[in-house]
Amino acid sequence: MSTQRTEPARGTRDFLPEDVRRREYVVGVIRRVYERYGFEPLETPAVENIETLLGKYGEEGNQLVFKILKRGEHEASGQADLALRYDLTVPLARVMAHHRAKLPRLFKRYQIQPVWRADRPARGRFREFYQCDVDSLGSVSPLVEAELCAAVSDALTGLGFDDFVVRLNHRALLTSLLEAAGIAREHHSGALVAIDKLDKIGPDGVRTDMEARGIEGKSAARLLEVFETARAGGTRLGLDVGEAGAAAWQNVAAILALLEGTSASGRVRVDPGLARGLSYYTGAIMEIAVPDLAGSLGGGGRYDDLVGMFSGQSIPACGFSLGLERILVVMAERGMFPPSLASAPADVMVAVFDAADAPHAVRLAARLRDEGLRVLVYPDADRIGKQIKYADSLGISVVAILGQTEIEAGTVTVKNLVAQTQETVPHEAAGAAILAGVKQGQRG
Amino acid sequence: MSTQRTEPARGTRDFLPEDVRRREYVVGVIRRVYERYGFEPLETPAVENIETLLGKYGEEGNQLVFKILKRGEHEASGQADLALRYDLTVPLARVMAHHRAKLPRLFKRYQIQPVWRADRPARGRFREFYQCDVDSLGSVSPLVEAELCAAVSDALTGLGFDDFVVRLNHRALLTSLLEAAGIAREHHSGALVAIDKLDKIGPDGVRTDMEARGIEGKSAARLLEVFETARAGGTRLGLDVGEAGAAAWQNVAAILALLEGTSASGRVRVDPGLARGLSYYTGAIMEIAVPDLAGSLGGGGRYDDLVGMFSGQSIPACGFSLGLERILVVMAERGMFPPSLASAPADVMVAVFDAADAPHAVRLAARLRDEGLRVLVYPDADRIGKQIKYADSLGISVVAILGQTEIEAGTVTVKNLVAQTQETVPHEAAGAAILAGVKQGQRG
Repeated sequence: MSTQRTEPARGTRDFLPEDVRRREYVVGVIRRVYERYGFEPLETPAVENIETLLGKYGEEGNQLVFKILKRGEHEASGQADLALRYDLTVPLARVMAHHRAKLPRLFKRYQIQPVWRADRPARGRFREFYQCDVDSLGSVSPLVEAELCAAVSDALTGLGFDDFVVRLNHRALLTSLLEAAGIAREHHSGALVAIDKLDKIGPDGVRTDMEARGIEGKSAARLLEVFETARAGGTRLGLDVGEAGAAAWQNVAAILALLEGTSASGRVRVDPGLARGLSYYTGAIMEIAVPDLAGSLGGGGRYDDLVGMFSGQSIPACGFSLGLERILVVMAERGMFPPSLASAPADVMVAVFDAADAPHAVRLAARLRDEGLRVLVYPDADRIGKQIKYADSLGISVVAILGQTEIEAGTVTVKNLVAQTQETVPHEAAGAAILAGVKQGQRG
Repeated sequence: MSTQRTEPARGTRDFLPEDVRRREYVVGVIRRVYERYGFEPLETPAVENIETLLGKYGEEGNQLVFKILKRGEHEASGQADLALRYDLTVPLARVMAHHRAKLPRLFKRYQIQPVWRADRPARGRFREFYQCDVDSLGSVSPLVEAELCAAVSDALTGLGFDDFVVRLNHRALLTSLLEAAGIAREHHSGALVAIDKLDKIGPDGVRTDMEARGIEGKSAARLLEVFETARAGGTRLGLDVGEAGAAAWQNVAAILALLEGTSASGRVRVDPGLARGLSYYTGAIMEIAVPDLAGSLGGGGRYDDLVGMFSGQSIPACGFSLGLERILVVMAERGMFPPSLASAPADVMVAVFDAADAPHAVRLAARLRDEGLRVLVYPDADRIGKQIKYADSLGISVVAILGQTEIEAGTVTVKNLVAQTQETVPHEAAGAAILAGVKQGQRG
């Protein structure tokens, strides 16, 4: 036989049973929290018309979109007409424009699906990864931002995180601070990249970095002073940031006030240095960090103009996206998964001595499954010792044995591999005997 | 503002909240049944290396694979190096070859994920659709086929289906019957296509169809006779089908015997005319049908050579795939979904008269969510009548109102929109009052 490459495509992964159980556990916790906030589930296709995606994520984003070849006679043209979903926000904006009449005026949706980016794979960075998005459309109220922060905070708390910080800033405030420092508009993005590193490289490092980006030393020093003042200000800004900046600051203060009494209270830190990469944000921006992860666990913000790009009619919107793989990485490193996730594939395995007895095994299994048990039937008439060893290797702690004696008497021998005991019971008592053994196995 | 196309890509669909709830309900029932049989979850990437997929599905299949353009400097070449998953069986075979050492010797897995085919879209036929697959690897025992039929039968029964039939046949039996009728090998596939229509167009129609396919009238008549004899035979074959055919018949009889005492008993019909399209099948083949659907709800079979194409080491395998969209179509037409799926997005909506009171609404919502309720907070200070009308339009039957009086007294007014009653209670009693209203709403 010839053989073929068997690894998954570069930057993608196979999820074996324990991986899937961990992922579903995390998704389940997040989903239940989102539903308690009244968010409803939405799903969109993995594949979008290519023009839906291009031009939404900036030049770098365009490069990272996976493009799908036209089919049939057009394949040879080498042209692409479809592309893989790059995030869940642009498809949401398209859905909002397309299905407007079928959706509530204030649409709150969550969406937990994979996205694809042709990024260079690295530790914790994949080409296929899941986003857990939650968005509110239809209102400009700061209550929207507050509820998003509270929901995400509830989700992380529900997973067992107790040391995360929600960084909060506002796009208009950011622009105002740069202007207050006298930084020319063409240097804004460079200055933000530099100031974003303040925690890591300190004020002197930031000043050097800014000068390398062509920002005058005087402006750099002024900007650092402005940011220090803004940071020190807490919920009060000791600076003249103009009308737009003041409104942005008021918006931030309103969000903070609303968060009192929620699980996000005390976890939100206003950070005038937070920038967020995506170009579609128009208002508040947020990002969640934990001490032992270099990147963020998630982020979001307000994007009031994106739906309008599809429908021509502007609809205010704000959202938050949690990164499933990053949450999983930190939870694995910290040992945060409940032990029950590493469970055996079944509660009990049914074994027979002779292939001719298999119909008895199938009938017993049907009865036990009806009682709610997870039952494996060993398919071959291997030596009984080999069968028991196999159950043990899977972590199954109970084996139900049907020998000739049991079959004739209408009984079954329930063998407890943990306690190394066994008893022979009628079929109708087998379920209870097995459950007792399963519980013992969990304690063992 | 300029506008863009907003429909999803051709042959794909957006799933709005009620669609997602229906899909998740069906998937949940199927998954719970599969887990009771000891099947474990597996997930594979949407994207595979292109050579993993090509050459596995026949020439027609190759044409229907969505291919992904190389990236960066190679994009202009128009070449593809990746492709979208076409089914869940070939990726399973790849996983089995790649992760052999990490998987149980007898690996039972289920996998519920989308696949993509560049088919011409039609009613009930999409380019992105979900398969619910369940496969056993590592054993040639007929118990494997029997458990797969039983599991799928349990799943459909659990969803409320009571009129499905599992058609069962065997690839080697099929070949033997054609040979017994004296049909030359090059006419086998044409003869099978014709015989597959026996129920629809009758013996005369089949004979005409066969002649149009170049099969002699004498052979056609002989084949019809052979099939009629085989069908009439029930669990006994009144024909000389050679050694391979007899072994296949024994295998079919063993599967039937094992199914006694399971939910599939009485639902399985041996159908020597069942062919199944895919070329990788090597043994028993199965298909599930209901009277009011032209196609099948699902199908499967044994494919003992597919894993060997990857690993060079043959591993016996058998599986069943249910089509999620077809199940959904029939369930929708028959009204089989539980009414609870059409539920409102929240149990209660919190309303305030004044924007300044929003922090009180957020705090009350946090308390109610902690008690397990699904709570929507109306984000804007619109007229209270407008807010209540909005809740009503979403099917929410209870509104919790915080007016100035309530806020000062630490109470909340719980308004039941169905019974048109209201009561004012302290915050700690609000949860119970809301739950009572929710229950009344469900009855209403």
